[in-house]
Amino acid sequence: MPETPEATSEAHEAPVSVLGEFTLIDRIIARLGEAAASDLVVPPGDDAAAWRTGPGLAVGTIDALVEGTHWRTDTMAWGDVGWRAVTANVSDLAAMGAEPQYLLIATTLGPALTIDDLDGLIDGIAESCRFHSVRVAGGDVVRGPATAIAIAAYGRIEGGTADAPLLRRSRARAGDFVAVSGTPGASGAGLALIEAGRGAEVGIEMLLLAHRRPVARVALGRAAAASGLRCGMDISDGLLQDLGHIAEGSEVGIELAAASLPLHPAAVEALGARMALDLALGGGEDFELILVGPREALVRLDTPEVPVTLVGRVVPDHPGEVVVWGADGEAYEPPRRGWDQTRDSGERRS
Amino acid sequence: MPETPEATSEAHEAPVSVLGEFTLIDRIIARLGEAAASDLVVPPGDDAAAWRTGPGLAVGTIDALVEGTHWRTDTMAWGDVGWRAVTANVSDLAAMGAEPQYLLIATTLGPALTIDDLDGLIDGIAESCRFHSVRVAGGDVVRGPATAIAIAAYGRIEGGTADAPLLRRSRARAGDFVAVSGTPGASGAGLALIEAGRGAEVGIEMLLLAHRRPVARVALGRAAAASGLRCGMDISDGLLQDLGHIAEGSEVGIELAAASLPLHPAAVEALGARMALDLALGGGEDFELILVGPREALVRLDTPEVPVTLVGRVVPDHPGEVVVWGADGEAYEPPRRGWDQTRDSGERRS
Repeated sequence: MPETPEATSEAHEAPVSVLGEFTLIDRIIARLGEAAASDLVVPPGDDAAAWRTGPGLAVGTIDALVEGTHWRTDTMAWGDVGWRAVTANVSDLAAMGAEPQYLLIATTLGPALTIDDLDGLIDGIAESCRFHSVRVAGGDVVRGPATAIAIAAYGRIEGGTADAPLLRRSRARAGDFVAVSGTPGASGAGLALIEAGRGAEVGIEMLLLAHRRPVARVALGRAAAASGLRCGMDISDGLLQDLGHIAEGSEVGIELAAASLPLHPAAVEALGARMALDLALGGGEDFELILVGPREALVRLDTPEVPVTLVGRVVPDHPGEVVVWGADGEAYEPPRRGWDQTRDSGERRS
Repeated sequence: MPETPEATSEAHEAPVSVLGEFTLIDRIIARLGEAAASDLVVPPGDDAAAWRTGPGLAVGTIDALVEGTHWRTDTMAWGDVGWRAVTANVSDLAAMGAEPQYLLIATTLGPALTIDDLDGLIDGIAESCRFHSVRVAGGDVVRGPATAIAIAAYGRIEGGTADAPLLRRSRARAGDFVAVSGTPGASGAGLALIEAGRGAEVGIEMLLLAHRRPVARVALGRAAAASGLRCGMDISDGLLQDLGHIAEGSEVGIELAAASLPLHPAAVEALGARMALDLALGGGEDFELILVGPREALVRLDTPEVPVTLVGRVVPDHPGEVVVWGADGEAYEPPRRGWDQTRDSGERRS
């Protein structure tokens, strides 16, 4: 953890408002360390950052996370919030098959945020940046009634001619297979256990990690696009809801086999098979990838480190609809298909 | 104003939470009309947007505006808020000499926001986009305790070799002249009049417009960089505070002549010369440009449409400090030099 100028002399439980805007910005840049893109043509600190581009595609996305809506301080440490905010954005680039490059981060400081909290947040951002090989090119810091982070992420895809190596939501074709990476539902299982007061149990460490320190599938997304796949997205709101976007965008139907879903063994063990299945179908923020295309192309992407599992088929029937078939041969409807960022009452649970 | 699918059937004073996330996103994209970048390689609606790049520099910046900190609903209409949020970001690109291209917009919906309010906000965004020739490439919509907008803006500078045509804060040299565009303080004067209950007076229309519908100096920034100037920034926090960034970044001193500042005649008329001067020195969010360089290069940029006025000199003395000389030959210190986004108590006034 890098030393900052004020590290030894301040009351770290003081609200961040004791620091002025420019002291705060200097502190954040120092604390980001090598996660700050200090070697850009114009590094952080001017009106805008500037970096060189070449022929190809720029890929850009923005996401906002707000305290109370996207996290609660009783279930996540500030470092986890920072880590996850970066991951969520990098994951959107991974889901396009892009190489993540730079982040622009707007932080709204709530009245209760202490210097320690902010340091934790920045450390989590820096750790996730290093892990995902992205760097912070600029930012903004303002006051507000609740702490929030908006991150814009930029990446690139080299080449980029008529058929650019991009993963789109609109490119599923009847006859394609549907695969998912990792074990969707693990993040939701971790949160469910924390909320049930079971966060200290033995054997659930990987579920807690999936919730607090999720990883974006950058290498998989790039490999998928390079191998010729053209359809994919990340699971941010829940597998069924996100598959619904592919079904709508591609005007196809999708059929899943519940029995083929790669449930996390610890989730099955701790919560039972039914709840593990429901979380795999409707839990959010796993940041695993959905990939759609020919069976052989999907199977070739499967590795021991990042499993890629076939879970369903694209069909010409019921366009826009996703159907889950249970082991009993009946259509299965889980309690929920995903999360609505603007309408859910109460906290967003995963 | 474009018709949206729900335009005729809804209770527009209902909170936006009656609309689901995806209905809301479709509504926003429809309402943006041609301000949405629907012809991109990947237009809004996928995990991320994608557009072609060529050799040169990408320029990126992010700013967040929060209700209560950056605007108040009693002094600005929602359309003004949207307009200004776009302008603030485009201005950062203008201040680099870049050509603005695309915006990514994360909107946090506060609990009191109605559908009418949101429509107004989006219309203001769309109008400012059309005026400034930028388009929205993507976004995010979430719930939160207060309405807020974070915008990341992305632009380009073509060419971009060893001495890229960029306006930096760090390139002022002793002997350079300092110029400003337009009439700094006009926005602050407009707000001061609104707050004093004088918003309906005759003769102050241009001041109200400067506050509610400020314009980014895109053409001027590009012309300045193309003409060989290499130092500039926009006035977002107040002329003196922003000049301080140039003085610090360039390790030079700056001396201003108070009498040379181009005060807005309506501000002098309505508020008196002293207050108009103080607002020119310490009022924020004019989004005029500060340009620094040889006298002849600055003078050549002056036009009837966008006046560029010489206001001071760069000196080797008092590095990092900005001194204002009054008409009486004494150093003049205004009541404030600018705005601190993280520490000011109460509302940010301009």
